[in-house]
Amino acid sequence: MQKFGGTSVADADRIRAVAEHVERSRRSGDDVVVVVSAMGRTTDDLLHLAEQVSAERPGRELDMLLTAGERISMALLCMALAERRVPAASFTGSQAGIITDTLHTKARILEVRGDRLRAALAEGVTPVVAGFQGVSSTRDITTLGRGGSDTTAVALAAALGASRCEIYTDVSGVFSADPRVVPNARKVPRISFEEMLEIAATGGRVLALRSVEFARNHHVPLIVRSSFTWEPGTAVTEEDPSMEQPVVSAVTHDTSQAKVTLAGVADRPGIAATLFRHLADKAINVDMIVQNISHAGTTDISFTVPAADLAASTEVASSILGELGAAEVVADTDVAMVSIVGAGMKTHPGVTATMFEILAAEGINIEMISTSPIRISCMVRAEHAERAVQALHRAFQLDSA
Amino acid sequence: MQKFGGTSVADADRIRAVAEHVERSRRSGDDVVVVVSAMGRTTDDLLHLAEQVSAERPGRELDMLLTAGERISMALLCMALAERRVPAASFTGSQAGIITDTLHTKARILEVRGDRLRAALAEGVTPVVAGFQGVSSTRDITTLGRGGSDTTAVALAAALGASRCEIYTDVSGVFSADPRVVPNARKVPRISFEEMLEIAATGGRVLALRSVEFARNHHVPLIVRSSFTWEPGTAVTEEDPSMEQPVVSAVTHDTSQAKVTLAGVADRPGIAATLFRHLADKAINVDMIVQNISHAGTTDISFTVPAADLAASTEVASSILGELGAAEVVADTDVAMVSIVGAGMKTHPGVTATMFEILAAEGINIEMISTSPIRISCMVRAEHAERAVQALHRAFQLDSA
Repeated sequence: MQKFGGTSVADADRIRAVAEHVERSRRSGDDVVVVVSAMGRTTDDLLHLAEQVSAERPGRELDMLLTAGERISMALLCMALAERRVPAASFTGSQAGIITDTLHTKARILEVRGDRLRAALAEGVTPVVAGFQGVSSTRDITTLGRGGSDTTAVALAAALGASRCEIYTDVSGVFSADPRVVPNARKVPRISFEEMLEIAATGGRVLALRSVEFARNHHVPLIVRSSFTWEPGTAVTEEDPSMEQPVVSAVTHDTSQAKVTLAGVADRPGIAATLFRHLADKAINVDMIVQNISHAGTTDISFTVPAADLAASTEVASSILGELGAAEVVADTDVAMVSIVGAGMKTHPGVTATMFEILAAEGINIEMISTSPIRISCMVRAEHAERAVQALHRAFQLDSA
Repeated sequence: MQKFGGTSVADADRIRAVAEHVERSRRSGDDVVVVVSAMGRTTDDLLHLAEQVSAERPGRELDMLLTAGERISMALLCMALAERRVPAASFTGSQAGIITDTLHTKARILEVRGDRLRAALAEGVTPVVAGFQGVSSTRDITTLGRGGSDTTAVALAAALGASRCEIYTDVSGVFSADPRVVPNARKVPRISFEEMLEIAATGGRVLALRSVEFARNHHVPLIVRSSFTWEPGTAVTEEDPSMEQPVVSAVTHDTSQAKVTLAGVADRPGIAATLFRHLADKAINVDMIVQNISHAGTTDISFTVPAADLAASTEVASSILGELGAAEVVADTDVAMVSIVGAGMKTHPGVTATMFEILAAEGINIEMISTSPIRISCMVRAEHAERAVQALHRAFQLDSA
């Protein structure tokens, strides 16, 4: 399975380069199924057109509109393959048997019927499948939402029993930190699904969380590679218990979170439950939660949400101020979450303390903390985020020589 | 049934105007099914992209590519309708039940399964259907070729029992001549299918021949109207025997034909049959055929073909020169066909002579002639075409007051 993202098929030259690579893979004896995204900025252009046409954009019609994008890229790739005498055929999500629920613009895959693709492979034809799209149980066209093309590739790889799923993109793999922030960040040759999930959840943008989860659940090894340099990338696989795990594999940061504080909340049981039930009812995804020590019977509760949900979150919080016996709601977008991720943390108990010491030595104040067995995240002022990442990357000896 | 061509949905403003018109039609109590083409130059842009990517462009992939165009326009139109609170839903050719044969890029409709559209109408939903496309009996995406969107509209109108099929375009109807050549050409309020077929076959570009034939065979009245002025257009209907037919309804011209002459052909039976069998084997559509009087046992045979088929035609003719005992093949693209069309000709036998007199008075030489019961076509030098059209239009009193 080879999946090519939007930048990998952005123009005629890129599409021809992808065709050359697919031909090379076939020559090496592998059966290949290709999944493509829409070309470059096609999806954004179509969305912009939709905004010009109408303030109302029903999900069913948005999906019909956006699925035009992959048709174009996959048909063009098949033509480029035809020129190289590689028998190929394009398949829409529907033709490839990607059956989804009816939740337009963010449908979930219910079933993959791989019979048409298997038949193509049996005839020596390389299937080129439209990523991001499917057909619902009511025969309507659906899209899978953010990271949808990766999810298509992983789902097809699982259904067809592919040995691996190669995700081609414009970066050469998973890095120990964002190279724009840490110029001497290293490419990680191999990483476990669990670490990759934590990286994706804390600001790493290479792979969407959902496709990594799908790959882990279906035991599909992922390989993240560049379609510009074709150099070896990062393998995302099951954890290998025979290998010693690095304590810290990557430092990530995420500036798209916001902090909401309810000040002067009555300190009695059930208060937090009330608040988070109301937030959950609005489908707002709360990440960190901190409750301060009580002073004179009141306390402060802070939590983080995606910045996009900030307005809805403060609205929810404000509406129940009275019920909570709280004084005020304070919103703060000037924050960033800095995290370290590493499978070795499980067996190295001092890592949290080390992280705090490194940040303290930089004079960076930690406002909130959350942890998992293989991750530690600290909320800091946004202006300190890059310095925090650089210091952590250096101190945990991730800088390349 | 309302069909909107590429210029009618060329940009966001045009799409919004179409939505307004559809809403008006619904308000007047009509159930409406809408068929749309791709926006403006989308199809040409996609073809250009394909040319950049590959010299090989398999029909199946061309069809996959081009069908992206109508998805975009129909989804956008549904959004514009949603903004106006007109319940609407887009349907691909496949979803609309347009079943075709497997001849990619010029598929023929085998069957129209109207159940999904009927269900939508029953729920008060206005279906917006992608023109030009269908799905083959082998579940591949097909396109209907030139004039395909009109054909989609007529086929759906027939299948759903629509009272009429309105074809919206950038001209306000069928004119007595091309208004660019004859500035005082008149819009014809009503014309028979037979006349419309002759007009379409001899250079009139408003409706594709194929959709007119389909409409006549299925008794679907057509109305050609402008989506820019929305003024009443031209009704194309069964001939009304109670009305007296105009002798001449329209003057047309076509500069896209070429003339091929085989000189010095042996004048014996079977020669013409041999030639035209070879041409037919290459799917070359011969229009006029003229064989001159024999001189000294040899004769000249001239025929016309679409200019696009000229190279193939001269190749066929050259390859059988020996078999025909012919001396040489002469190609001539500097010709034009000028025609007059009118149902009244059937009862006015002198029209041919009148046409020849008019052209003679202009000093225009006629090189070839072909006729049908309601049409007379003359091949003239291309440089005389416009003058011939103007003279005929004036002499047959078609000029507007």
